[in-house]
Amino acid sequence: MRIAALQLEVSLNKKENLNRVDQIIDKIKGCSIDMVILPEMFICPYQTNVFEKYAEYEGEDTWKALSKIASENNIYLVSGSVPERDGNHIYNTSYVFDRNGKQIAKHRKMHLFDINIPDGQNFKESEVLSVGYKPTVFNTEFGKIGLCICYDFRFPELSRIMVDQGAKIIIVPAAFNMTTGPSHWDILFRTRALDNQVYTIGVAPARNPDTGYSSWGHSLVVSPWGKILHQLNHLEDIIITDIDLELVTKVRSQLPLLSHRRFDIYTVSKPL
Amino acid sequence: MRIAALQLEVSLNKKENLNRVDQIIDKIKGCSIDMVILPEMFICPYQTNVFEKYAEYEGEDTWKALSKIASENNIYLVSGSVPERDGNHIYNTSYVFDRNGKQIAKHRKMHLFDINIPDGQNFKESEVLSVGYKPTVFNTEFGKIGLCICYDFRFPELSRIMVDQGAKIIIVPAAFNMTTGPSHWDILFRTRALDNQVYTIGVAPARNPDTGYSSWGHSLVVSPWGKILHQLNHLEDIIITDIDLELVTKVRSQLPLLSHRRFDIYTVSKPL
Repeated sequence: MRIAALQLEVSLNKKENLNRVDQIIDKIKGCSIDMVILPEMFICPYQTNVFEKYAEYEGEDTWKALSKIASENNIYLVSGSVPERDGNHIYNTSYVFDRNGKQIAKHRKMHLFDINIPDGQNFKESEVLSVGYKPTVFNTEFGKIGLCICYDFRFPELSRIMVDQGAKIIIVPAAFNMTTGPSHWDILFRTRALDNQVYTIGVAPARNPDTGYSSWGHSLVVSPWGKILHQLNHLEDIIITDIDLELVTKVRSQLPLLSHRRFDIYTVSKPL
Repeated sequence: MRIAALQLEVSLNKKENLNRVDQIIDKIKGCSIDMVILPEMFICPYQTNVFEKYAEYEGEDTWKALSKIASENNIYLVSGSVPERDGNHIYNTSYVFDRNGKQIAKHRKMHLFDINIPDGQNFKESEVLSVGYKPTVFNTEFGKIGLCICYDFRFPELSRIMVDQGAKIIIVPAAFNMTTGPSHWDILFRTRALDNQVYTIGVAPARNPDTGYSSWGHSLVVSPWGKILHQLNHLEDIIITDIDLELVTKVRSQLPLLSHRRFDIYTVSKPL
């Protein structure tokens, strides 16, 4: 299974961003890519005050363009995330298309990032966005894949739920900042992979000094043993990697963490 | 709150190991230590085939010696772990004594380490040990403290349970090996601290070439922000550190991860 993770430099222009995705995917056409992953909020700057302006309904122009990219290239497209309008609500949403351009999953960010660090990061997503209510796992011919967005990944319960639903890879379009990025990005992807014995893939926007939000970048692929297999710096770039899902089975049999859980003592479940 | 973490070099001689603990604590007598933490299986080599030989009932000689060390030094003593005999069972048990030498907690390892890595580590605790059934959190005048042993710490659910019971520090006597140590030790302590916004403290035996088990060592103290504050190498040594529990409150208010959990979607709880 060959995956391409695109660390895009996102501009202010929605159309330009979509075209850029199209061009880059066109460039790697000969590489037998099975799945392309885009970053969180790849069509607009990561600023809460612009989400409203860029938001579209499911099925509108951006959605159509993404579906077309998937079908024309015969790839799965995990399309990062975009601001999705639904009535009076805006969601931070990731659409997933299959090789025919059919939408096979849609994740709405379930945890909103509200942070207030003196002399550091201040950000309040909940002022603008509404939350999703459902963990997301989708099926492919390679196996099941979990999907969550950025801050969602901070909560170990959600990864457990996805893994218990069969996920062997967890994909995370994300945009950590210059405070949380250097402190937390690597260890979160490594430990979630390790705890759950899955591949984790984080895809961030490249750092663009022309927009108001500085993305940490550093998109990465981590093995089920918690090892970083590939990692970018902060510039626009692409990871192309072959994922060996046999390794998930192997690691789980060598160190059977998942079956060593004490199901008699605890479980991660829907509350009554 | 001043804590001393003793990375002991463990010999084959039980009495010698106990005396060594006594001597080292005597040496730091003037340091106003509030709590001393010992490593996993500090009275015997970390080999399943010797646990039976070294095991004692609660209240026997080793227990008495530990209680006395606590009261004589007016310290809390988190006494690493020892093989505890109880009828036909042997447990990997950590006793906690207060400043008066009174036992205020006792944790029996809840997850047993069975691993089989070709050309790497092979180990099967469950052949000899029985499992504990209860997460452990104890109270001090500084606040509540969670306690688990080594492999227990691999399971994020257990840390969550301790934190929901009020733990602001999680203490982990542990003995990672030369395979899992370099790959996993640091990121586990860092990410559990980060996810749960607590201090984590890992205390390992020093590496002793004269015993059959090579301990990774690298005892450490991690802040609620996931930062390593102190770390040893593999030799016998001691960390003396002041823990600022205000930082737990501060980090939890700046980035309110614990209250951002989606309690409507998931909970870590006792199964029905």
